[in-house]
Amino acid sequence: MMDTEIDRELLEKIADLLGKPVGAFNIRKDCGCDGRESTEHIKIDNRADGKSGIDIRILDGTVGETCHIPVIITKPGIEETVYNDFYIGENCDVTIVAGCGIHNCGDQESRHDGIHTFHVGRNSHVHYSEKHYAEGDGTGAKVFNPQTIVYLDEGASIQMDTVQIRGVDSTKRYTKIVCGKDAEAVITERLLTHGTQSAHSDMEIVLDGEGSKGRVISRSVAQDQSSQVFYPRMVGNAACFGHVQCDSIIMGEAKIKSIPAITANCTEAQLVHEAAIGKIAGDQLLKLETLGLTPEEAEERILEGFLA
Amino acid sequence: MMDTEIDRELLEKIADLLGKPVGAFNIRKDCGCDGRESTEHIKIDNRADGKSGIDIRILDGTVGETCHIPVIITKPGIEETVYNDFYIGENCDVTIVAGCGIHNCGDQESRHDGIHTFHVGRNSHVHYSEKHYAEGDGTGAKVFNPQTIVYLDEGASIQMDTVQIRGVDSTKRYTKIVCGKDAEAVITERLLTHGTQSAHSDMEIVLDGEGSKGRVISRSVAQDQSSQVFYPRMVGNAACFGHVQCDSIIMGEAKIKSIPAITANCTEAQLVHEAAIGKIAGDQLLKLETLGLTPEEAEERILEGFLA
Repeated sequence: MMDTEIDRELLEKIADLLGKPVGAFNIRKDCGCDGRESTEHIKIDNRADGKSGIDIRILDGTVGETCHIPVIITKPGIEETVYNDFYIGENCDVTIVAGCGIHNCGDQESRHDGIHTFHVGRNSHVHYSEKHYAEGDGTGAKVFNPQTIVYLDEGASIQMDTVQIRGVDSTKRYTKIVCGKDAEAVITERLLTHGTQSAHSDMEIVLDGEGSKGRVISRSVAQDQSSQVFYPRMVGNAACFGHVQCDSIIMGEAKIKSIPAITANCTEAQLVHEAAIGKIAGDQLLKLETLGLTPEEAEERILEGFLA
Repeated sequence: MMDTEIDRELLEKIADLLGKPVGAFNIRKDCGCDGRESTEHIKIDNRADGKSGIDIRILDGTVGETCHIPVIITKPGIEETVYNDFYIGENCDVTIVAGCGIHNCGDQESRHDGIHTFHVGRNSHVHYSEKHYAEGDGTGAKVFNPQTIVYLDEGASIQMDTVQIRGVDSTKRYTKIVCGKDAEAVITERLLTHGTQSAHSDMEIVLDGEGSKGRVISRSVAQDQSSQVFYPRMVGNAACFGHVQCDSIIMGEAKIKSIPAITANCTEAQLVHEAAIGKIAGDQLLKLETLGLTPEEAEERILEGFLA
């Protein structure tokens, strides 16, 4: 585990790991298992159906525990689709830290497609965080196509934080959350593209249950010639509240498209959407430059704050 | 002209006409011309290409004049597509009042599809208003599928106000405005559907020119089992500012979908979108009821204000 400097750097970038994680974990490296531990309340097993990936079972009433399931790819030419299923009992409060780091110095494509399905039991709260990062000076593309499907039982909630740091050449994200009665989904998305990268984020929040709530806060920065497309969709089928907010900073010769959809199929559904695309405000830059920063430093500082 | 009580009522509803209009006008009734007048600056002619419809030519420097071109359909079973082209010179400031009223007491469909194309010259301002209204207790559907295409030259502007009052069974609206340098497009859309009506509004504002501006303010009410779909799109291809705002009130068992898109193809494009769908706020109703209104009156008063 964490054999090389590259492993250690990738794991720190994507999962804030310095050394062995506390609690249950599964570290996937180059298509193999590089370490696994279950705990009394969190059981990690290979999938029963033989597909690549793991089953994570969290017992009823598990509170305050964290489960790390990072993935690193250090060799070029690895293209994998991994299926991870989460079965979270009732009355839990747990943190799941996923994420994938690719180091590709070759000229073949490296690709990780993580298909995650969550079944969240009654009154359970899940904090799910996922970071994607890639590096390496080869010409091989670094690609992520994650799919996250979440079913929230009555009173359950998820806070899903996704971050795409630098280096990802192409990503197609798909996220779907179905909310039962009084369930709540909160998604924060942070995405930065540069060079000729492209990112596509497709999101669907289905507010099926009475009293359910959905909130999406998406912030992105597109630099250079990169391009981004966002399709956040919020559907209200019951007395519910949904709010989608997308803010993007456009730079260089980048292109950004934001195509949200709100659909009310019930009179008691209240849905709100806001989106804005623009460049960094000139007066913000000026203010920081007045404080002694170079234009480049000022820009960097503003982007850091925006994506924090 | 205005032969019958029905004619007079329809013309008042859709064009606020009480008697003969002042200025240039063309009144279309049941596929024929029911009155036309050109003025010194505004020339109305049958189309040169033989298609159904008229050419309206407005001379350079025409200021403060109004042109009325209402359409009424009083017989069932009329289904027409009409092409009206507007050639507006430079430095004009004119008002164009369009609109169509259908009275259908039969069991055959009545349909009017008005295809309007505007060429607006440099520094000209056009105020374009269009009302759609239908009535009649027959089972025949009353249908409008208007298309409005506008090209704004440098410094030109259009204020386009569209209103769909009651009675329209089905509508598919398509609006496209292409803005040149320093051109400005402002669209206000007011739409009410009831019964089992359906409305579909597709809008595209292309901000091609430096300094161009686009603003869409859409307000709608969906009652009973009616359904509405909105596709407002704003594309920024230059240093420009665009703002789309969609507010909808949902009632009964109605369904509303709002799918706006903002696309920035230039760093200097600043685009903002807001959308909200919800029912009438309970405290607003209560306040009016406290003032002595019945619940029905209170609701009506709020809807009137919202769609004003």
